[in-house]
Amino acid sequence: MTAPFRPNEKIIDFRSDNTGRAAPEIIAALAAANEGTAAGYGGDEWTALLQHRYSEVFETAVRIFPVATGTAANALALAAISPSWGAIYCSEQAHVSVAEVNATGFFGGGSRLTLVPGPHGKLAAEALGAALAVAGTGQTHRSQPAAVTLTQASDLGAVYSLDEVRAVTAVARSHNIKAHMDGARFANALARLRCTPAELTWHAGIDILSFGATKNGGLLCDAIVVFNQDIVPSLAIQLRRAGQVWSKMRFAAAQLLAYVEDGLWLRNASQANAIASRLAAGLRDLPGVAPLAPIEANEVFVKLPVAVMDGLEADGIRFFRRPGDIARFVCRFDATADEADALLSSLQRHLATAR
Amino acid sequence: MTAPFRPNEKIIDFRSDNTGRAAPEIIAALAAANEGTAAGYGGDEWTALLQHRYSEVFETAVRIFPVATGTAANALALAAISPSWGAIYCSEQAHVSVAEVNATGFFGGGSRLTLVPGPHGKLAAEALGAALAVAGTGQTHRSQPAAVTLTQASDLGAVYSLDEVRAVTAVARSHNIKAHMDGARFANALARLRCTPAELTWHAGIDILSFGATKNGGLLCDAIVVFNQDIVPSLAIQLRRAGQVWSKMRFAAAQLLAYVEDGLWLRNASQANAIASRLAAGLRDLPGVAPLAPIEANEVFVKLPVAVMDGLEADGIRFFRRPGDIARFVCRFDATADEADALLSSLQRHLATAR
Amino acid sequence: MTAPFRPNEKIIDFRSDNTGRAAPEIIAALAAANEGTAAGYGGDEWTALLQHRYSEVFETAVRIFPVATGTAANALALAAISPSWGAIYCSEQAHVSVAEVNATGFFGGGSRLTLVPGPHGKLAAEALGAALAVAGTGQTHRSQPAAVTLTQASDLGAVYSLDEVRAVTAVARSHNIKAHMDGARFANALARLRCTPAELTWHAGIDILSFGATKNGGLLCDAIVVFNQDIVPSLAIQLRRAGQVWSKMRFAAAQLLAYVEDGLWLRNASQANAIASRLAAGLRDLPGVAPLAPIEANEVFVKLPVAVMDGLEADGIRFFRRPGDIARFVCRFDATADEADALLSSLQRHLATAR
Amino acid sequence: MTAPFRPNEKIIDFRSDNTGRAAPEIIAALAAANEGTAAGYGGDEWTALLQHRYSEVFETAVRIFPVATGTAANALALAAISPSWGAIYCSEQAHVSVAEVNATGFFGGGSRLTLVPGPHGKLAAEALGAALAVAGTGQTHRSQPAAVTLTQASDLGAVYSLDEVRAVTAVARSHNIKAHMDGARFANALARLRCTPAELTWHAGIDILSFGATKNGGLLCDAIVVFNQDIVPSLAIQLRRAGQVWSKMRFAAAQLLAYVEDGLWLRNASQANAIASRLAAGLRDLPGVAPLAPIEANEVFVKLPVAVMDGLEADGIRFFRRPGDIARFVCRFDATADEADALLSSLQRHLATAR
Repeated sequence: MTAPFRPNEKIIDFRSDNTGRAAPEIIAALAAANEGTAAGYGGDEWTALLQHRYSEVFETAVRIFPVATGTAANALALAAISPSWGAIYCSEQAHVSVAEVNATGFFGGGSRLTLVPGPHGKLAAEALGAALAVAGTGQTHRSQPAAVTLTQASDLGAVYSLDEVRAVTAVARSHNIKAHMDGARFANALARLRCTPAELTWHAGIDILSFGATKNGGLLCDAIVVFNQDIVPSLAIQLRRAGQVWSKMRFAAAQLLAYVEDGLWLRNASQANAIASRLAAGLRDLPGVAPLAPIEANEVFVKLPVAVMDGLEADGIRFFRRPGDIARFVCRFDATADEADALLSSLQRHLATAR
Repeated sequence: MTAPFRPNEKIIDFRSDNTGRAAPEIIAALAAANEGTAAGYGGDEWTALLQHRYSEVFETAVRIFPVATGTAANALALAAISPSWGAIYCSEQAHVSVAEVNATGFFGGGSRLTLVPGPHGKLAAEALGAALAVAGTGQTHRSQPAAVTLTQASDLGAVYSLDEVRAVTAVARSHNIKAHMDGARFANALARLRCTPAELTWHAGIDILSFGATKNGGLLCDAIVVFNQDIVPSLAIQLRRAGQVWSKMRFAAAQLLAYVEDGLWLRNASQANAIASRLAAGLRDLPGVAPLAPIEANEVFVKLPVAVMDGLEADGIRFFRRPGDIARFVCRFDATADEADALLSSLQRHLATAR
Repeated sequence: MTAPFRPNEKIIDFRSDNTGRAAPEIIAALAAANEGTAAGYGGDEWTALLQHRYSEVFETAVRIFPVATGTAANALALAAISPSWGAIYCSEQAHVSVAEVNATGFFGGGSRLTLVPGPHGKLAAEALGAALAVAGTGQTHRSQPAAVTLTQASDLGAVYSLDEVRAVTAVARSHNIKAHMDGARFANALARLRCTPAELTWHAGIDILSFGATKNGGLLCDAIVVFNQDIVPSLAIQLRRAGQVWSKMRFAAAQLLAYVEDGLWLRNASQANAIASRLAAGLRDLPGVAPLAPIEANEVFVKLPVAVMDGLEADGIRFFRRPGDIARFVCRFDATADEADALLSSLQRHLATAR
Repeated sequence: MTAPFRPNEKIIDFRSDNTGRAAPEIIAALAAANEGTAAGYGGDEWTALLQHRYSEVFETAVRIFPVATGTAANALALAAISPSWGAIYCSEQAHVSVAEVNATGFFGGGSRLTLVPGPHGKLAAEALGAALAVAGTGQTHRSQPAAVTLTQASDLGAVYSLDEVRAVTAVARSHNIKAHMDGARFANALARLRCTPAELTWHAGIDILSFGATKNGGLLCDAIVVFNQDIVPSLAIQLRRAGQVWSKMRFAAAQLLAYVEDGLWLRNASQANAIASRLAAGLRDLPGVAPLAPIEANEVFVKLPVAVMDGLEADGIRFFRRPGDIARFVCRFDATADEADALLSSLQRHLATAR
């Protein structure tokens, strides 16, 4: 079947990194996996190879579980490291808190998100320490500290430095709680930091990672990567129960294998980041337009007059509005410099008018 | 990337319909959807078309939600029609009961499966009526009857006739409970009954359907089809919370569109059923080998001496053993008559020896 | 305030052991605890003494947690020994299964009751072994065996012998699952068996006990008694979360202290059992009236013609009807021989008429 | 049995209103209920009278459900008015948030508390409106606004005026969410405001009330009072499932009947409030000691030097310390003016030294 309609070619799309295409390499890998028969539910050769390949990528023996979505990855990873009476600390802007319904609490049997302040969508280590100091560990009437989750890159487009990650996990370790990283844009953060996947995760004290692929050229699967092997058995059965274990798992494994093959993931992320940097550079020349956070990955958040946002849309530019007259522009791996320039030019024009 | 290993061509695989390939048409549709940008989370044109197309297929306005797996479809469909204090009636062999961990109870917040006897993996209407008569509707200390779920085709390979479905839903309706169909092998049942999708579902009193595609040539998605529109809003948010709403939904919708295009689903199911019928015919000639249930879809269950099962495996035939010396043979849409004949021949040989 | 109405003195009440009065000793103890101030939530001296006193009663260091009801005791005890993906084995007549809504599954986050047959409301060790043998331990698509629960005395009024309890727990231990006893009528069973509380519980392999008091002269509290200390911390916090930890705990502890003081509990239970034995003896003389189970505690279940049940009620006798024309007569600790004789006499009369 | 130990008469106890005695009238009522037999699970005459009596007290037909604790009342009331994907708005100091483990989320199947700022432990109507305005009602990726809960008196000892309550419920109503009042100290608030129970609840837009008795002279039960009858059926079954429905309910109903008889509840609350007012007056004379909130009920919160707190304890005064060098003094219904004066005198002495 061919597509029954023609994608709109006139719009310039900065709505999200999930509005984009999949990397052709991943589609091809999925098609290539369609040979012969293979054991179901992850008993196949692709999934076995996946374990091996990601253990190489992360330079340690990891267990990787493909899942359908980032929400599933986050909620199930957190459920695996918190009891149902646990408190899970996150940034005030964290996706788990603002954009995943009550998935954390639902999969966690009532476990609770506790908001911790910090700059630019990041959770500050000191603030985490302060919260834990008065959390009432061991008191039966208090939610018991269980885990911290960091969104990397952050939900405002900033990136935790290695030192910042380590500072948070050091606080976590000193209070005997576990550390999760929501890596929906993990590759964008890696590309920014130019460090290794190991350095950004288990070297830095991360126990479990939501490994995003969809936003960066994937299509139908993300993953959970587990560094702390104690977590594996209870996570495995919770994934099965959650309806997150595909019977034809090879088709998910093949996607994730292709994703890291020949550096595809980092190449895609670098491209997306580069477009965002181009926007950042352009914004610096626009008086009165200050991003909400440093533009360190592939997202740009700026406060704009409503008339300007209306003007952008009239020019065919698509993006999302957030409360408080915030515009969010997300750069896809296949966004182009021309699209960025068109956005900047439209912005410049409407800002001039609005003033 | 090409597949890093060669599928084993020597084995004959009757393990499951999930060990097989995807239909090439579905892979092609998925690849074809990879053009341009599209709104996320089901706001795209493919998903809109999906609603339209399945409403045609079912001859009424349905709402169809793609999900990752059959377990997700079942658990979330049932959670949408039962309160957490509800009882959900199912056959003793139902997949929801024996093969989905505690997914029904988990997604249902504690809702409870109640087993109802019946022949051949089917739930008998009379037995359901008897159970409901003593269920204590309205008594606060009793699990409150909420729903019945039928597996069509059944988990022993039989198929409910239209009259049997109607008899069950009539009992359900008379006790004011809802009716769900687990259609993991819905197409196989349809192909057997030669009725319309409408006749087998809402015409027959079904409120909500787990619509299987994976076992019949799909790869990474099944669906929930809702006939009773009251269920839609709470189901939609529960799906999002469950991590079952893909951000790049178009790639799921494209699969399900291709699945029903030009009768692919029924063609695939007919092929699988035909191989099972060939096995059924062959088994009739083997003395002492009686299937556990009529072979009406694509599954065959027979009790066999252990030595015979060992012999089959030595011949390169793969299948699953169930407690009680039961062998299960499942026919995939791409299984061949030659494979069926090889199985029958191997069976005949080892049975002769075993005697 | 005096009671605003006069209890009906004309009826003879065999409805339940919860329709009765509390033992005056327990009311007195509760009143006596109303002196001075005491730390809240179980930090008081009464609760400390309770731990000590029950450790004497059970001849080992136990932890006892007062709770409001037997349903709370059962559901929270089971939640403490089963993961949310666990299977909990119980008798087909078990109170947890037929009379506690979905409390086990709710508090257990989806954990599942699995019914095991056996005689007289008891679960048979062999049947448990057979169920566990095919349960699929270690398979992620199966509910994982976690615990067995025995109702002692059983829900049909029979009592497990010590050998029967040990046989069940031996099977449990050999499959690495835990053992819970629902002792809503624990004292009645003890009084029947004339063994020690230790012999009937941890000596016999029980890990955790729902300790009933309400039905046997208590009023507003039962308890959980924990023999396996590993269970204590997670149970303690789950009790607090369940709203089962009274802030003025001394008033609960005082009840449970009085309950075992000077053998009150066993005296009460013996009285109730004696009335049931009197009924049993009388029933033996009534042709065609066979109890459903041996009358070994304080409950009597018999199948009776509807006309006879109507006749009993017309005579002012109160009891409960169960589906299948079953009448249940429960003997309270303060029931009298005269009441038993009145029941027998009424029965005899109506049976004669009915014939 | 007499109390096995003598309460410590030397200490002066301001730890909590749950460290105190029960009102003798309530103990007497409980004892008086111990006559004859009565139907179980709330089918008795006392519980029927309770419905009638509280409907008089609240001047409308209410349904009142006795429960064991305030945590149970809150968690189950909120579970009855929020779906599991709901957001429940509460003050930053709310007991449901800081002192009930994860009870709200647990009983709510994952429902989520969202903190709203406001003065003195109260939630500000404007802040609630601001939160609701950006909550994303109708968006499937957002927790859906379901309810607001006010603690009256507040958790810092202040009292919402009628206008303040009405302002909050007006915002709630305009966003189509329900309103719950945590009335653990409802009588203290009533005594302060000198309004009627009706005026403070349903007149002011409250749908459901956690009705506290324990802290104000009760012993083992609080209650849920429902004004919005739509909530009743699902709440009733959830209470049964939660193990919060006593089989000998008459003993709970008798307590709650005595609690409101002849104005006992308001008399007790007035006494407790009067002692707190005496403390408030005394504190005004102590330089540098400012309560955290207006002292409008029976609680006093003040920041004190650690040395002063140590000094108070050395003088035999008991109270609780909160993070940030906060001392909490709670006045019981049976606290005396002498005790208040002793506290003030001790405070004065140690403050003088500390300076």
